[in-house]
Amino acid sequence: MISSASNNQIKNIIKLQKQAKVRNEQGLFVVEGRKMFEEARDQAHVFVEKAYCSSSYYEEYAKNDSYFKGIAFELVSDSVMKEISETITPQGILALVKKPEYKIEDMLRSDRVRLLLLEDLRDPGNLGTMIRTSEGVGITGVIMSKNSVDIFNPKVIRSTMGSIYRVPFLYAEDFAKTLTEIKNQDVPIYAAHLAGAVQYDTIDYGKRSAILIGNEANGLTDEISNLATKCIKIPMEGQVESLNAAIAAAVLLYEVKKYDTK
Amino acid sequence: MISSASNNQIKNIIKLQKQAKVRNEQGLFVVEGRKMFEEARDQAHVFVEKAYCSSSYYEEYAKNDSYFKGIAFELVSDSVMKEISETITPQGILALVKKPEYKIEDMLRSDRVRLLLLEDLRDPGNLGTMIRTSEGVGITGVIMSKNSVDIFNPKVIRSTMGSIYRVPFLYAEDFAKTLTEIKNQDVPIYAAHLAGAVQYDTIDYGKRSAILIGNEANGLTDEISNLATKCIKIPMEGQVESLNAAIAAAVLLYEVKKYDTK
Repeated sequence: MISSASNNQIKNIIKLQKQAKVRNEQGLFVVEGRKMFEEARDQAHVFVEKAYCSSSYYEEYAKNDSYFKGIAFELVSDSVMKEISETITPQGILALVKKPEYKIEDMLRSDRVRLLLLEDLRDPGNLGTMIRTSEGVGITGVIMSKNSVDIFNPKVIRSTMGSIYRVPFLYAEDFAKTLTEIKNQDVPIYAAHLAGAVQYDTIDYGKRSAILIGNEANGLTDEISNLATKCIKIPMEGQVESLNAAIAAAVLLYEVKKYDTK
Repeated sequence: MISSASNNQIKNIIKLQKQAKVRNEQGLFVVEGRKMFEEARDQAHVFVEKAYCSSSYYEEYAKNDSYFKGIAFELVSDSVMKEISETITPQGILALVKKPEYKIEDMLRSDRVRLLLLEDLRDPGNLGTMIRTSEGVGITGVIMSKNSVDIFNPKVIRSTMGSIYRVPFLYAEDFAKTLTEIKNQDVPIYAAHLAGAVQYDTIDYGKRSAILIGNEANGLTDEISNLATKCIKIPMEGQVESLNAAIAAAVLLYEVKKYDTK
């Protein structure tokens, strides 16, 4: 049992929780809680590097030999668990998971293509919620500009409610170039824009389409919105200046979803 | 200038920030930041009891005599401002605002009625986002069960982005009874329910309708969902068990909005 916070593995987990740079270097991210661990364990394409659990968690859930299904694990003391956890009341289990790698070709391959494109999205809760909604509408890929919040940030992971394991995503090195590539593959891009000329529910989204959403405070840059096939708007009453980014994405994605069966 | 955190006004503001009970007793809530203060100051129906600002804020924005438009204000030191603020980097202004009181009769009076009904909603960010979306779709009233999160919680207020001043809302003492009252006024209630028999976009929402959303973790209680005119569902792909509550509300409310002009 690891009972010292100065243990090297423990120090490394704390770094993985806090720093995107360390996650990138090691190709790992941290998931927490029973549901998140068990889903990672049970999904064939998710590779769990190692699990850490408290003795009380072990006694309650993991005593059965088959619980970890061959995943290496260590017991840690409750105080160490508190140290490595990003939640106030840790459930007692946490795991290091290998970062998945998705390719844009796979996102564009099938007859039905549904993309969510995000320019410089910053709020972890918004991104997590968008990933969850994306699974709900059957998005084939989420593509983010490289300045967007790190999807492996613990807050993002928590708000995805497990969808992080199942929605393909990638960060585009050159976002503008990637948008052009997408359009060249017969996927029109519809940008959510306050100055959009077309109301969102008057478009025929067909079987291939992409929704483009900008930064929470500043919206889309001109460079990027100029690359869109069309700028679309969501009507707003009252004095509302804009909708929350995750809300705007959901309203648009559920409208697009209707065209899956039209 | 107030420079001591043991000043009685300061101690009271801290209580107002933290405790719904104190807000209820005094009929006041706290708003923070330049935009929130200026909107409160400029809306005729919002009554600002008192403002507190830092000297640097005063120098930058408020030196002009007319800035406070007759609202009583006090200067506070930067350290006191940090003490009373719920944000990590306070903008330097905060105000006590009188709680508004809305009546259900006013929400039901006009030909067009759009209600959002919330049973035991718990997450402040979700409620705030819902209030913001509600203004966007022109909701005539948000009605919450009395166990829902307090709308005057600082996190809720922040996520409303000012819509708190403009969306009518109330807490129902007896939520079930209120739902029956609403139905009796020819406003059908559509409950978002995972076991809903009808897909949300196949309903004619007419000019009068209410959307009912349940608690984030447990959904609606049977008692309440049984009172709905219909249980409706939002289709979900993949392994998504449910959508985020604010997302579900937005998808439904924007579908309903289409019937404003149909």
